[in-house]
Amino acid sequence: MAISLLPVEGIPEIRDGDDLGQLIAERAELAAGDVLVVTQKVVSKAEGRVVPIDADDPTSHKAVVAEESVRILRRRGELLMTETRHGFVCANAGVDASNVPGEETVLMLPLDPDASARALRERLGELTGVRPGVVISDSFGRAWRVGQCDVAIGAAGIEPIEDWRGRTDAYGRPLHATQIAIADQLAAVADLARAKDARQPVVIVSGAQRHITEEHGPGAAALLRSRAEDLFR
Amino acid sequence: MAISLLPVEGIPEIRDGDDLGQLIAERAELAAGDVLVVTQKVVSKAEGRVVPIDADDPTSHKAVVAEESVRILRRRGELLMTETRHGFVCANAGVDASNVPGEETVLMLPLDPDASARALRERLGELTGVRPGVVISDSFGRAWRVGQCDVAIGAAGIEPIEDWRGRTDAYGRPLHATQIAIADQLAAVADLARAKDARQPVVIVSGAQRHITEEHGPGAAALLRSRAEDLFR
Repeated sequence: MAISLLPVEGIPEIRDGDDLGQLIAERAELAAGDVLVVTQKVVSKAEGRVVPIDADDPTSHKAVVAEESVRILRRRGELLMTETRHGFVCANAGVDASNVPGEETVLMLPLDPDASARALRERLGELTGVRPGVVISDSFGRAWRVGQCDVAIGAAGIEPIEDWRGRTDAYGRPLHATQIAIADQLAAVADLARAKDARQPVVIVSGAQRHITEEHGPGAAALLRSRAEDLFR
Repeated sequence: MAISLLPVEGIPEIRDGDDLGQLIAERAELAAGDVLVVTQKVVSKAEGRVVPIDADDPTSHKAVVAEESVRILRRRGELLMTETRHGFVCANAGVDASNVPGEETVLMLPLDPDASARALRERLGELTGVRPGVVISDSFGRAWRVGQCDVAIGAAGIEPIEDWRGRTDAYGRPLHATQIAIADQLAAVADLARAKDARQPVVIVSGAQRHITEEHGPGAAALLRSRAEDLFR
């Protein structure tokens, strides 16, 4: 199955209250079976998840991180590995300096990224007649490997996990990899298609229609390993 | 930048000693700037990393896992989270039931997957005149998230990590995600393009030429977080 990736060009700087669906619909040719991967930053900005901080007070940023965390798992220097209100394990609760010029602000993760994905999917459906799969992505570090990979923090209209448990390979043997984190792989894919400094927050993935679902589905919440099942928290 | 993915069709069952480069070169149209993502299974098979086990003795498989591990990090039921001789943290040292019909065997990871990637790259260069980037992928679980994602266990001719440390975004602010695990994202991308039961061990990624390098480079070893820097081992 051939897959292709195309960044959406010309998305402007996003501000609180912007209609992200409309800004995308005006610039993208959506086809049935497409998946739209959108970075967390633009979703958070459109949802007003921005707070001013005091640039002269280094505790100001940290207070926001603490507010967004339910638990601090590890600490090293400036890095806090936290569990967020959603259950994500990531650096500094996903709180990031926001790149709005001239303002000292930080950007928080959306309150409910799966709800954000569902809303964006519905809005695109209204405007274009196509309800694409939607993934909201963010760059997370990993426990044992250097560097960040984009993962899905929100999803709608896609199968977040492809479940091969109980299924067999071409020779009838049980498969080694049994639950494939499709939503995370879609997020990682999209990140490859853009340069970090290129202002391309939206990438269209075509050819992944076998992972598309009619219903919104369980979202990226399905990818959260519970504390009880987690051997490394 | 548009990226596209195409599985190579018709790769036969691989056996010890097979010339994987030739089998790929006969079936793929390679262009400059392409990255070839190859699953660990076919590389291990071609390298004879298969050992017979006694199907009636459940300790037989486990003995191979122990042999391939330098350390057992966690244990739950049948699952061992291990550190392999290479430094990978993964389930059961990456040892897997092999899908050769009629034989009770297990497949181990290549002894030196970066060397395997370099050799394959050179061989493809000889045969086709194009030295593609090469990534050898395997499906690994993650600490805090459900499901597996493909990651790079070997690489040659690509930049495994895109380093944005010290660089800034469109507004001159320091970037949040500073080291992008490109090799892992390439592995994840390729996995999306195939079905697990479709015998498509090789996927060509086109359009990622900005990550291609002339030299073989540091390989996937660059993605191994050292124990000293790992907060979760």
